[in-house]
Amino acid sequence: MSFAKLDVLGRQLDSLDHAMAILGADEATHMAIGGGEARAESMATLAGMRHRMAAAPQIADWIDAAGSEPLSEDQAAALREFGRVYLNLTCLPVEFVERQTRTRMRCEQLWRDLRAKGDWASFQPALAGVVDLVREEAALRADALKLDPYDALMEQYDPGNRAADIAPLFDDLKAFLVDFVPRALDVQERRLADRPRKALSGSYPVERQRELGLAMMAAVGFDMTHGSLSISHHPFCGGVPTDVRITTRYRTNDFLSALMGVLHETGHALYEQGLPREWSHWPLGHARGMAIHESQSLFVEKQIGRNPAFWRWALPMVERHLGESWTLDDILPHVHHVERGLIRVDADEVTYPLHVILRFELERDLIAGRLEVVDLADAWDAKMQSYLGLSTIDMPGDGPMQDVHWPSAAFGYFPSYTLGAMIAAQQWAAIERDHPQIDAELADGNFDTVNAWRRERVWSQASRLSTPELIERATGEPLDAAHFRRHLEKRYG
Amino acid sequence: MSFAKLDVLGRQLDSLDHAMAILGADEATHMAIGGGEARAESMATLAGMRHRMAAAPQIADWIDAAGSEPLSEDQAAALREFGRVYLNLTCLPVEFVERQTRTRMRCEQLWRDLRAKGDWASFQPALAGVVDLVREEAALRADALKLDPYDALMEQYDPGNRAADIAPLFDDLKAFLVDFVPRALDVQERRLADRPRKALSGSYPVERQRELGLAMMAAVGFDMTHGSLSISHHPFCGGVPTDVRITTRYRTNDFLSALMGVLHETGHALYEQGLPREWSHWPLGHARGMAIHESQSLFVEKQIGRNPAFWRWALPMVERHLGESWTLDDILPHVHHVERGLIRVDADEVTYPLHVILRFELERDLIAGRLEVVDLADAWDAKMQSYLGLSTIDMPGDGPMQDVHWPSAAFGYFPSYTLGAMIAAQQWAAIERDHPQIDAELADGNFDTVNAWRRERVWSQASRLSTPELIERATGEPLDAAHFRRHLEKRYG
Repeated sequence: MSFAKLDVLGRQLDSLDHAMAILGADEATHMAIGGGEARAESMATLAGMRHRMAAAPQIADWIDAAGSEPLSEDQAAALREFGRVYLNLTCLPVEFVERQTRTRMRCEQLWRDLRAKGDWASFQPALAGVVDLVREEAALRADALKLDPYDALMEQYDPGNRAADIAPLFDDLKAFLVDFVPRALDVQERRLADRPRKALSGSYPVERQRELGLAMMAAVGFDMTHGSLSISHHPFCGGVPTDVRITTRYRTNDFLSALMGVLHETGHALYEQGLPREWSHWPLGHARGMAIHESQSLFVEKQIGRNPAFWRWALPMVERHLGESWTLDDILPHVHHVERGLIRVDADEVTYPLHVILRFELERDLIAGRLEVVDLADAWDAKMQSYLGLSTIDMPGDGPMQDVHWPSAAFGYFPSYTLGAMIAAQQWAAIERDHPQIDAELADGNFDTVNAWRRERVWSQASRLSTPELIERATGEPLDAAHFRRHLEKRYG
Repeated sequence: MSFAKLDVLGRQLDSLDHAMAILGADEATHMAIGGGEARAESMATLAGMRHRMAAAPQIADWIDAAGSEPLSEDQAAALREFGRVYLNLTCLPVEFVERQTRTRMRCEQLWRDLRAKGDWASFQPALAGVVDLVREEAALRADALKLDPYDALMEQYDPGNRAADIAPLFDDLKAFLVDFVPRALDVQERRLADRPRKALSGSYPVERQRELGLAMMAAVGFDMTHGSLSISHHPFCGGVPTDVRITTRYRTNDFLSALMGVLHETGHALYEQGLPREWSHWPLGHARGMAIHESQSLFVEKQIGRNPAFWRWALPMVERHLGESWTLDDILPHVHHVERGLIRVDADEVTYPLHVILRFELERDLIAGRLEVVDLADAWDAKMQSYLGLSTIDMPGDGPMQDVHWPSAAFGYFPSYTLGAMIAAQQWAAIERDHPQIDAELADGNFDTVNAWRRERVWSQASRLSTPELIERATGEPLDAAHFRRHLEKRYG
């Protein structure tokens, strides 16, 4: 039975993935600073071992042979994903995977140290080394998958997404936002002139913010027996579906930053926790891809967490934990605050897509060889000036050193963020169409309807459908940016 | 080059060991409760993978062939340890290792839950399952090593230790202590009649105790860039030499319990951090064994940490962190407090050996089949009554469910604790002979001499010598219980 062999293989790979996921989360949260070199060595060896197992030549035969075996519908779907994943994996030789893992882990460790110092000169050669390897990777993948190099990179994150479809969509959005951002800022200015913004009191102890975050996580559906909340330099959702590790970082003078971050990562976590347990050791059981994953985090952070109805329920909870009393009119100007800023993860939902589009354009140029790392700081600054009217030329720590993605060799990933925002808006529109009372439910702290809808149409589907199919089946129509534009117009226009 | 092949193999095994060590520490400190099953599966798979790699038949040929290659002195020593470890490892088939790992991990997880409830009835079948597997293991090892079954288990922890040598030594010590414990209690009672003990004030916040612990760790030599301190149910020293994870547990009404625990684990950590980095991927580079390891933890906890001279330096530090002022006459009755108690890890150094001897005798009987798990609670109680005059029959959580060792299949390990206490006393006597000013150095918070002595004679030796050789070369004589008896007589007689 060839399918049975794939099933056993799936369990072994799942065990290695479990180890690497926990080691990865541990590295960012609990590892001693001097432990980095040995950790990189261990992770590189495990990654190589996993790759050898997952890319073994006999697997191609098992996949072929399993095609003529009597399979259940689930098994047939699992077989399709085994095949897709195997093809994507066997583009890369073991030697390359080990070399790239070692290089990117050292670059990531360097980044943790040098970003804070804004030391672009020392960091640049390490990043250039990563970019060289990613170009090599893109060429290997493109050749095997018969795709353009950048599409071949994206294919790892969102099966079916193509730059040729995304670029015009992003060009449209960019055109809309370049006009809309000043308009939203104008609206905001007029509102604040009528009613000045009440300042945050300025002192929110980390421990109280943490308790508030935990309470919110539990309320919106996070299963506390299968996950936890820690602190890290860059917030993330990691670990494994049975033990989801989410992190945040705290500022004692602003509780909204960490709270919204926690809601965002909770959205990712709900997806992981909601995946079908019985498929967990098959690729079929994994989350569909990064754009869908981001749609789930942004659904919780933006569609739920910044909805005025949500705040009717959330305000008393904030008061209970932070001891500060707010009205809806006090809090919404903070929750809906729009501002041109340098930092992507701190950006509001209006300006955020411009940060993503900037990175999308730059990384396409880097992969295509139209741009070199030595010119990256200037190129970043030029776009930042043109899209948001800001300069980072004197602060590379907030420019091309801002994100962990490039140091960790994740190119082709950035578009997922803004695609996710569009998908989340489209999902919300679909729920609102079917459940016109949904705002009232949020105001009661009742998340059953939104969670049941997503559990049925997104979480439980895992990787059964392609990204575009999943969007269309869940919402009844293909991805359409109009929902996201209408969402922005309604909230900020 | 066969040695070169062993060298490469060593690096791969070291990477897997790294992963399992961090996963193990994580499980006890940061894992979500619902993550246990998947973690057990992952650890079992990694352990099986490691076992297959480390026990591959061709390694026997490499070891043979490397014997006729031109090797440096270090390489020759490394080869001897490769051979010894390979022989110990190949006693066990892969199937057995996976089965045992799964069983013991489930038992350990069950133990975390049921120990607190004292639910011996629910726990007993799981422990019986572990004991069955350990008997099977002992028989497999005995056969391969031509040793008695219990000796074959001990051989994993302390190469060269034999029950026939240890049992008379422990019988002597038991006879001494059964007489000495009442005598020490008498002395204590008379002292307290003259000067009643000043009570601990009763409220020591966890965060302050943690800060005090960190300050003490750093002072006695712990390298904070290569390790950290966390909280766990059962204190331990885990992780890897470049990232040593030590843990403790806090009581807010008693700072000494956690502080002494931290000093104990710091002793283990210093050994790990002091191992020669250049041998780290060879078995030769690992710590010699558990008795030597325990001698290093007890050296820091008992020989340093309960020395009155140490407290001259430590008292101002305690005051600085906990805001409470003590005199030497106030603190020593706490530091040297002797009491018959049920809990091994809370026991003082006078009664501790009786806890160990009880376990040593019971586990020898369990392995020999002279005792079954179903009778274990009664047998435990009988010995507890005879050695310490206490009963645990109504509280199995403090009886045979007390320690993590048996649920995790570590039989043959307990003797190491008391052997370690004897070795530590003998090391201290040797240092005192060579450095009569050593007490004055401790009183200054100067740990250079004691650390340099141990670095040279213990830590840097790693696994170059057998346990008895290491003791004799370091201290100038074979292990002699007289040093430990004199130590107890001096401090408590």
